[in-house]
Amino acid sequence: MSKIIEPKILKGFRDFLPAVEIERKRVIRLLEDNFESYGFVPIDTPALEYTEVLLGKGSGETDKQMYRFEDNGKRDVAMRFDLTIPFARFMAKNRQDLYLPFKRYHINKVWRGENTQRGRYREFTQCDFDIVGTDCASADFEILTMMRSSLSALDVPNCTIHLSHRGIFNRFLDHLGIKEQSVEILRTVDKLAKIGRDEVLRLLTELSDAEKAEMILDYIQKEDGFIPTLEKLERLAGGPAEDSGRLREIWSFICELGLEDGFVLNPSITRGLDYYTGIVYETFLDDLPGIGSVCSGGRYNNLAGLYTKESLPGVGSSIGLDRLMAGLEELGRSAARSSNTQVMIMNLEKDLVGYYHGLADRFRKAGFCCEVYHDTKKFGPQFKFAEAKGIPLAVICGGNEKEAGTVNLKDMRNRESYEGISPEDALKKAEELLK
Amino acid sequence: MSKIIEPKILKGFRDFLPAVEIERKRVIRLLEDNFESYGFVPIDTPALEYTEVLLGKGSGETDKQMYRFEDNGKRDVAMRFDLTIPFARFMAKNRQDLYLPFKRYHINKVWRGENTQRGRYREFTQCDFDIVGTDCASADFEILTMMRSSLSALDVPNCTIHLSHRGIFNRFLDHLGIKEQSVEILRTVDKLAKIGRDEVLRLLTELSDAEKAEMILDYIQKEDGFIPTLEKLERLAGGPAEDSGRLREIWSFICELGLEDGFVLNPSITRGLDYYTGIVYETFLDDLPGIGSVCSGGRYNNLAGLYTKESLPGVGSSIGLDRLMAGLEELGRSAARSSNTQVMIMNLEKDLVGYYHGLADRFRKAGFCCEVYHDTKKFGPQFKFAEAKGIPLAVICGGNEKEAGTVNLKDMRNRESYEGISPEDALKKAEELLK
Repeated sequence: MSKIIEPKILKGFRDFLPAVEIERKRVIRLLEDNFESYGFVPIDTPALEYTEVLLGKGSGETDKQMYRFEDNGKRDVAMRFDLTIPFARFMAKNRQDLYLPFKRYHINKVWRGENTQRGRYREFTQCDFDIVGTDCASADFEILTMMRSSLSALDVPNCTIHLSHRGIFNRFLDHLGIKEQSVEILRTVDKLAKIGRDEVLRLLTELSDAEKAEMILDYIQKEDGFIPTLEKLERLAGGPAEDSGRLREIWSFICELGLEDGFVLNPSITRGLDYYTGIVYETFLDDLPGIGSVCSGGRYNNLAGLYTKESLPGVGSSIGLDRLMAGLEELGRSAARSSNTQVMIMNLEKDLVGYYHGLADRFRKAGFCCEVYHDTKKFGPQFKFAEAKGIPLAVICGGNEKEAGTVNLKDMRNRESYEGISPEDALKKAEELLK
Repeated sequence: MSKIIEPKILKGFRDFLPAVEIERKRVIRLLEDNFESYGFVPIDTPALEYTEVLLGKGSGETDKQMYRFEDNGKRDVAMRFDLTIPFARFMAKNRQDLYLPFKRYHINKVWRGENTQRGRYREFTQCDFDIVGTDCASADFEILTMMRSSLSALDVPNCTIHLSHRGIFNRFLDHLGIKEQSVEILRTVDKLAKIGRDEVLRLLTELSDAEKAEMILDYIQKEDGFIPTLEKLERLAGGPAEDSGRLREIWSFICELGLEDGFVLNPSITRGLDYYTGIVYETFLDDLPGIGSVCSGGRYNNLAGLYTKESLPGVGSSIGLDRLMAGLEELGRSAARSSNTQVMIMNLEKDLVGYYHGLADRFRKAGFCCEVYHDTKKFGPQFKFAEAKGIPLAVICGGNEKEAGTVNLKDMRNRESYEGISPEDALKKAEELLK
């Protein structure tokens, strides 16, 4: 007998057992269907790419987290750590085979050697969607409204999208004469919810001065209503311009579709990254604000500048699937189940196994998920199996029933039985019971 | 301006553009739905595991092909190169949380640094399904019939499953007194289609002697019909036994469900691997035999022996998704399209963009995939876009139409127009045109 290898997995990695994987697949299908209903198309890219390509300009943080190695051909390669950089590379490489505007979604796993102490996984799923090749309010609006309808599709219609505009904020900083510090200021403001007003004020004062720090805190304070807030921003930024006009246009679409309740102009939303140039936004579940934003993103003016000279403006979003699924579970919107089987054909007599498979086929052809219990065993283990698998209905049929052309149908949830009915009637009854 | 990075990808890796990815998703969904209709449940495992775990007993070939490296925590890790070993490790690790028999499917990518000269990819998709924890004819039959129904679900019902039984073959070799050479003999017989009868005879003669080589070739010759072939095998193997009884039982189920046309007892099927102990099988498309087996597998007596002392017998199959999809395309069963969008709302006036989004919503709520063209442009570029995206219908609506409460619907495939109709009627017409 050879030595047993311990079946351990790497820290930060997970096995997905059926109950979790079924729910993941359900959620992903609903998202995919919603994206496709707006004309978004799916793509996929390699899990492994040249490190040089993934690293791009490179940031210390990302570099350290990458799974990077030399392959058997001595190439410096790395596993993708997000879906944004591969998308930029994808657009540059395949530009001649694509039309613009190009609307893609991409749902797949990414890998980061993060510190797992913070409750983070090293393998997790991202779900990105972007509209590339146009810079207009219509595209901005579509991304926003698709975020909402995605959550509606998952049965959490009560969500609020907080948005703001990077361009107005930059104009405001320029107006104050502190545009050079914009990156640090953005990152500081982004921490508001986490570190509180006083600490932000202290940090902003360090970056500029006390008066300007107060003005920034005034700027990021939302007023009562979208338009009053917008008017304040325009005033503080030195008047209306294209950027605030864009927000006004988006707001008019929101009003035209009667979606006012779902959107807030919130100038404290900045998104840390200096990548964004237009609108930025975060989405919160009304019934679960504590878990933070489940979907966020913004507009950028050049997606693939690292890989091509063609300028590709775009707007995009990313759903944190793990966080969203945790939220769905907390809200009781998760349909967690250990299988999708609806009907089990019990196995009472070895000689009837072929007949059982025929019965199962009839149920499947009628649209049920139906399985035969494979081994001829006593009722006990078969019922236990059905319970473990969460199967609601059982078909019981022995030699006498077969001869009489009948079956017994048992509802495992309340132990009620429907005996001596034809397979035909069992199908009808099952439909009724599972409605 | 910073230096442009060439957007290249690694040899043997692929970008999946929308037309390909849409078709992949369609095929995978149909397979998933079919598996679930039989009570199979999905799982997933990490892309990256301890090398020690993946390597198991280790074989030179696999070892060389693995993407193996040291991670930032100095762990010896590797990317999975199949879904079988992770499944064995999964069963051993999660045994206490699972019921038996456990029926799982797993569809995901695997990585092998193979020689790409042979037209192979280094990143490709496997689709595995197994029934673990029972050794009975019912489970064997279910795997076989599910393979058939999977191909039916993909609109290729005309396929033939060739099966045989390792146990009978081993008994036969034992009978001949050459059991020790069984692994080499199996691998030689497995090459029959590739290298031809004469070369197999020569190799078998080297492994045993001329008389026995002829007897092996006689054994692997199929007779006219399942039962006559089975009787010959029994005779050559020294009489009926449990192994041949199993085939007889499976055949009785096949007959009971009227599936005789789809199965052939073909003793030349051996499957190279010494892993199998019971039935083994390969599936060929009747209209495209040249591409080889699209789905194959067999019964094994111990899935997870490397990782646990519990013996887990099982039966399983693997679909070569890339090969199958190539086959579907060749048979014209592939539904390749560049998007799923059915209706495009054309953008004629900037002031109507909000109205256009409202129209699109009405189409979506009626179940259509519908998108607004984002930029207000001339007809030309908009039609060109619709064509590139394969969108069959366009809704055309300017200020006059809006005022009159009408739209024009245009069928892009035959250029026919339905003008001045209400949005309501446009929905009905669209349904009719896309039926």
